[in-house]
Amino acid sequence: MVDPIAMRRRVTLKDVAEQAGVHISTVSRALNPRTRHLITPEVTEVIERVSTRLDYRPNAAASSLRTNRTRSIGVVVPDIANPVFPPIIRGIEDALAKHGYLAILANTDGHLDREAEIASMLRARGVDGLILASVEREDRAISRLAAEGLPIVTVNRRVDDQAVSSVVNDEEDGIRRILAHLVGLGHRMIANIAGPQSLSTGVERYEAFEIHRRSLPLASDPELVMFATAFNEAEGERCTDELLARGAPFSAVVCSNDRLAIGAITALRRRGLECPRDLSVTGYNDMPLVDRLSPALTTVRIQQYEVGRAAAGVLLDAIETPPERREPRHIVHPVELVVRSSTGVPAQR
Amino acid sequence: MVDPIAMRRRVTLKDVAEQAGVHISTVSRALNPRTRHLITPEVTEVIERVSTRLDYRPNAAASSLRTNRTRSIGVVVPDIANPVFPPIIRGIEDALAKHGYLAILANTDGHLDREAEIASMLRARGVDGLILASVEREDRAISRLAAEGLPIVTVNRRVDDQAVSSVVNDEEDGIRRILAHLVGLGHRMIANIAGPQSLSTGVERYEAFEIHRRSLPLASDPELVMFATAFNEAEGERCTDELLARGAPFSAVVCSNDRLAIGAITALRRRGLECPRDLSVTGYNDMPLVDRLSPALTTVRIQQYEVGRAAAGVLLDAIETPPERREPRHIVHPVELVVRSSTGVPAQR
Repeated sequence: MVDPIAMRRRVTLKDVAEQAGVHISTVSRALNPRTRHLITPEVTEVIERVSTRLDYRPNAAASSLRTNRTRSIGVVVPDIANPVFPPIIRGIEDALAKHGYLAILANTDGHLDREAEIASMLRARGVDGLILASVEREDRAISRLAAEGLPIVTVNRRVDDQAVSSVVNDEEDGIRRILAHLVGLGHRMIANIAGPQSLSTGVERYEAFEIHRRSLPLASDPELVMFATAFNEAEGERCTDELLARGAPFSAVVCSNDRLAIGAITALRRRGLECPRDLSVTGYNDMPLVDRLSPALTTVRIQQYEVGRAAAGVLLDAIETPPERREPRHIVHPVELVVRSSTGVPAQR
Repeated sequence: MVDPIAMRRRVTLKDVAEQAGVHISTVSRALNPRTRHLITPEVTEVIERVSTRLDYRPNAAASSLRTNRTRSIGVVVPDIANPVFPPIIRGIEDALAKHGYLAILANTDGHLDREAEIASMLRARGVDGLILASVEREDRAISRLAAEGLPIVTVNRRVDDQAVSSVVNDEEDGIRRILAHLVGLGHRMIANIAGPQSLSTGVERYEAFEIHRRSLPLASDPELVMFATAFNEAEGERCTDELLARGAPFSAVVCSNDRLAIGAITALRRRGLECPRDLSVTGYNDMPLVDRLSPALTTVRIQQYEVGRAAAGVLLDAIETPPERREPRHIVHPVELVVRSSTGVPAQR
């Protein structure tokens, strides 16, 4: 039978003490492995029997008041329904769980003011730190919270402020590999759909494209660059339409992420153009299912799960380190090129 | 400048009281809108100025000890990286955020013992309730926690125990629509890749297939039914291979979810069979990106986001209701058929 006390409200230390006929501090000592030796085994046994019968569980709120730790971490993403984030979150959650920490999840929809609001609400709730996949390069609220001593790590993206720790991917190497692959196939006129320049991923991939384009036998034409205002399919379609409308010739489009590439392929198809027969298209991230698209997407594989795990590791280290000895850390994970069927030799014109 | 106190540790009510030169209970009353009228406006102003300067935020742990509410909800899924769950979680999180509640996320990888462990850890952390997308039909740990009075709602799936509230999709209507669509195209021999029968989604979709098959001009052949042991692509491939190996003729395969359907199409392609030219294939869920597959998947659209929101609503209602007046609620959301290019008229044989 279920005990009526448990049905009405949480069982407290006091309930156990009353039923065991001992003082509340005795119960507390008996149930704490570090202080149990102070109590006789007989009394400990009685207390354990009563606490099992009442289904007593230590109150996390009370314990957090004593230790000033909640063992909970805020994890903030632009939108969990964007397929690039779930594997990262999974990596974070697995690493936290292993250390007895929980992940509190929140979405910003890419609004910095919402991010600031969420971060400050999470702080008020007493999270021990924040992992943010939602940051922009200039992110004052986050810089301020970090300066105040709240452990913070950005994941997948970073802020320009080097005082905020980050775990990101090697954007430059990814774009270098994509360009080398396309040049190897014979492409010389390559367009670029760059991501939002307010995000580190957008600007770093764009800059890598410009740097490596110069060292390769590639045409340089500002007409071949479009800046997407968001990392999504609709912007991929819009930028592709605009590139085609401009009339400058190109045989491949390097897109700053997979969602832009999916939009690019949709826009080509709408105009009766076939990928890769007429135009090669590349993505970035290797998010779930892009291997099942038609054509399957050639892209850069980031280690989503590993990046999430590493971010959690950096954060937990920071939490365990006294504030005055904490140093920001910046980890860059390697990426790899995944060649599938959205890239091929250039069309003969 | 950042205040040195804020850099070292959380600012407490006591810090504000000391700096304002008043008693701690005065600060508490002044900062609570319901008790502010007890304090003179001049004193309130001083206290507000000091608390702003020190960046004081109410401590959630202390507040939770007083109210016995943490305003946090455990959200448990099999695997957040499975594309069907993120839109559901997003719906949950949005509804919770609107009421000032936070979502604590955890993954079970489909292991019931892990689910029980997580549920009990979340309870020990003082969550006000649980939303579970991870349940099996027989789920004793969950039934026990619900019987003990912890508010619980299952989402997308349900347990057989009617005492546990649920928000699910109309599985029967979804399968009915799929079958009517295929029969309308001229299919008479339809195979079924059913999902795991330990899950409500698996058994309800399978039973709906059997019921509606009987009322339609469809062949009945046990050789045309395969049971997947998991809702994933690998099982879709295995079951399709097995159906083809058995040799009984069929012109369409109804799969119990999208991931099984993606596996089925992959298996067909490997054998040189084209979908829908040689065989029509249908899915269930309409998870992100299945509209971009080739062929784009004909499937049943469940209202993932709405189902998540509704589950959060049912849970928050339960939390606000005194335990003795709580009644389990069961909500079934409507579904719709989405016809794309993975279904067509049967091949002429």
